Amino acid sequence: MRTIIPFDIADPKTRLAPILTPDERCWFARMMLSDVIHHLREAGIEPEVLATEPVDCDPPVTVDDRSLDTAVNDVLARTNGPVAVVMADLALVTSTAFEQLFSPDAEVVLAPGRSGGTNALIARHPDFRVNYHGASIRDHRRNARELTNNVAEVDSFRLATDVDEPADLVEVLLHTSGDAATWLRQRGFELAATDSRVRVERDSNENSHGPETTPRRS
Amino acid sequence: MRTIIPFDIADPKTRLAPILTPDERCWFARMMLSDVIHHLREAGIEPEVLATEPVDCDPPVTVDDRSLDTAVNDVLARTNGPVAVVMADLALVTSTAFEQLFSPDAEVVLAPGRSGGTNALIARHPDFRVNYHGASIRDHRRNARELTNNVAEVDSFRLATDVDEPADLVEVLLHTSGDAATWLRQRGFELAATDSRVRVERDSNENSHGPETTPRRS
Repeated sequence: MRTIIPFDIADPKTRLAPILTPDERCWFARMMLSDVIHHLREAGIEPEVLATEPVDCDPPVTVDDRSLDTAVNDVLARTNGPVAVVMADLALVTSTAFEQLFSPDAEVVLAPGRSGGTNALIARHPDFRVNYHGASIRDHRRNARELTNNVAEVDSFRLATDVDEPADLVEVLLHTSGDAATWLRQRGFELAATDSRVRVERDSNENSHGPETTPRRS
Repeated sequence: MRTIIPFDIADPKTRLAPILTPDERCWFARMMLSDVIHHLREAGIEPEVLATEPVDCDPPVTVDDRSLDTAVNDVLARTNGPVAVVMADLALVTSTAFEQLFSPDAEVVLAPGRSGGTNALIARHPDFRVNYHGASIRDHRRNARELTNNVAEVDSFRLATDVDEPADLVEVLLHTSGDAATWLRQRGFELAATDSRVRVERDSNENSHGPETTPRRS
């Protein structure tokens, strides 16, 4: 199945600015992309990257600098057959979670993200289009049901967890040992648990401008 | 399988204090408990409530005013056979998610919650004990693996989403129409989506001290 991973090159992950420099945010986004590509391949899927600028990675890259919705909907309109769209910041994802995404034989498959997002979807209906703004899962449910009764949702914590904010790094460090988690640990991030809350702390001895890690896997 | 739902009566859901009165927090906690009981029963499980004080609900109630860990571990120690422990604030849960929890035939089954919690677990190994403080999922993984190689984890957004903070009400309103969601809507809460974020707003015309809703289902 044609599977695209939208990837925004310029100033990614702005809500991580309190704890990562602009350069680090680019690297961290790149590590999460690497994890997503790796686990898609483990699930037997060869993805394409739909990027706002050229990016050096192993899968084929299409550059489209228009908005996310416009670029994705252009792919949906031009593709004869099913299309999967998977977000690039699913640092917790596993091949098993992707297998779960690809298993329902529905005309539209939706994987909700936290806070109303849509972290992955499959469009088998030729008229399905995306709208990622606001509570996109609500809009995608409505759009899908206007087209077909054959809509499925996938219930996965790993697909639901995109990484946007400093608190989300807790999930990365707790639940995965992929490129993104390894990169965070190498940059000095670790879990700090009190009785009631868990947060990330950064070891100030780590050099935040030291050599970057190359993604191991893509 | 013996399935217990710990339920703290006194001053529940303190992190919702910015938007719910103490009395409302008690009612909202009760509505979420009702949803959890309902969906366990739909999955063929008759639960028990393990409460800090007497509570009027349909399942059998055991009162134990000791700490959560002490009370749950006492049940684990006294029970000859498997025990499931399910948190009371899983407002998004469905019978399908519970069926997923109960399906692995492992000695310990863990369902991670967001931010390092453990929202549901099954202990078939007689020596497994809980410790819900801090990053409990990390401790429970370690405890389980010290006892057995037969440990399973359940990947479910609905089991992972406990409701603690005002932002969590977004998930309740987006993904369920159970007692908790109905109660919130009746109290004037609704989704407000901007382009980038989704939040809950409360209609100030709703009377925040009006008649309470009775749980429909337990």
